Amino acid sequence: MTQNIYDDETFFAGYSQLARSVHGLDGAPEWPVLRAMLPVLSGKHVLDLGCGFGWFCRFAAGEGAASVLGVDVSEKMLERARRETADARITYQRADLERFAPPAGRFDLAYSSLAFHYLADLAGLLGRVHAALKPGGVLVCSVEHPLMTAPARQEWLIDADGRAAWPVNGYLDEGRRVSNWLAEGVVKRHRTLATYLDLMLEAGFAPTKLVEWAPSAEQVVVEPGWAKERERPFFLLMSLQRG
Amino acid sequence: MTQNIYDDETFFAGYSQLARSVHGLDGAPEWPVLRAMLPVLSGKHVLDLGCGFGWFCRFAAGEGAASVLGVDVSEKMLERARRETADARITYQRADLERFAPPAGRFDLAYSSLAFHYLADLAGLLGRVHAALKPGGVLVCSVEHPLMTAPARQEWLIDADGRAAWPVNGYLDEGRRVSNWLAEGVVKRHRTLATYLDLMLEAGFAPTKLVEWAPSAEQVVVEPGWAKERERPFFLLMSLQRG
Repeated sequence: MTQNIYDDETFFAGYSQLARSVHGLDGAPEWPVLRAMLPVLSGKHVLDLGCGFGWFCRFAAGEGAASVLGVDVSEKMLERARRETADARITYQRADLERFAPPAGRFDLAYSSLAFHYLADLAGLLGRVHAALKPGGVLVCSVEHPLMTAPARQEWLIDADGRAAWPVNGYLDEGRRVSNWLAEGVVKRHRTLATYLDLMLEAGFAPTKLVEWAPSAEQVVVEPGWAKERERPFFLLMSLQRG
Repeated sequence: MTQNIYDDETFFAGYSQLARSVHGLDGAPEWPVLRAMLPVLSGKHVLDLGCGFGWFCRFAAGEGAASVLGVDVSEKMLERARRETADARITYQRADLERFAPPAGRFDLAYSSLAFHYLADLAGLLGRVHAALKPGGVLVCSVEHPLMTAPARQEWLIDADGRAAWPVNGYLDEGRRVSNWLAEGVVKRHRTLATYLDLMLEAGFAPTKLVEWAPSAEQVVVEPGWAKERERPFFLLMSLQRG
């Protein structure tokens, strides 16, 4: 089973303070780019893998989705989702994505924001998601960029010109990474970008768009503290079509 | 026109000393992986973009290719190619890839080793290569990995644990990079991995395999000096199918 760090009290308290938890999708700086990668949602059946507080589920329902199934392993997150983002078209279900098997041939869109990098067996989930999509269905997802998950020490260094440099090492060594983000001992899985793409291809998905996301120059004007974040990508956003 | 650095005397002298120039394909450590990405060549019509000394052209002819067209901008390289890798089935042609327009619908395979990162207008070339391939034709290519072309200073740093870290910055800022590799002022073009993939998709190619190449653990046993090179990928290898 995947580590359920979101039900850790310290982690949950910290996570709940993040802009994306307080302000929803508009508090997530990558959202405008991810949103532009989505198909039209009106009348569609939508699956949200790692739905958290249900912000995307509510967005999809607001866009006219016919049904939305939000799945998460965290009881605490689902409790808040059911309280704050309830909608007649949304169903919330607790499940570990490592084993979750959605009904076959049911969905037009599978969506997942920042969940896949927690999974040890991503190939297994992708196979089940492929089966759950209708032919021509779409998968839109985001993960921490492999440049973020790779390093042994996630601390900026300074190059010989005094410029910030992100310290990449261990990139080829995939697997478990333990970080102390919001709580001690958060377990993520590092995969190379090529591996993400290969897993998608092997599951039968054809990539249609890949974005290595960092804050835009415009976002840095509003948040000058983010300037350094443009030196390397932060998230990897992908849209793919079920073959 | 692309900078024709290969005809610079200093560069050419240095390049001619590299293992890949002295020993051909077997001197290129990424060759076994790239080779495994190739389709069967027997009876095929092959285009080599940036053929250099013609090692791959000779390999393709040896594999039974029906015809091989090797194209390069460097007169010095083509001269040696015509002298050392001549074969009745190989034609060598001097052309700048920025403008080269191969005959339409002629080829089964377009191959390019470490040439695309010199081109300012890669989209233009990919469009012409797409047109030059038969339906179902294949493009197999390698470029310097974007992590190699990105940094302002290509010098290893040391992290807080004393471990080598590759200094990534400027990753999102695409365009001209000037390095002093074998000669002063070698001009390359940095593109993100997402941009390489988008350019391929926009030209009508569907990716079938992506490899972020670094020496294998086995290669490091033979060449212990390469150990650090496994901290981050060195080349990006891609195989794609003409849609």
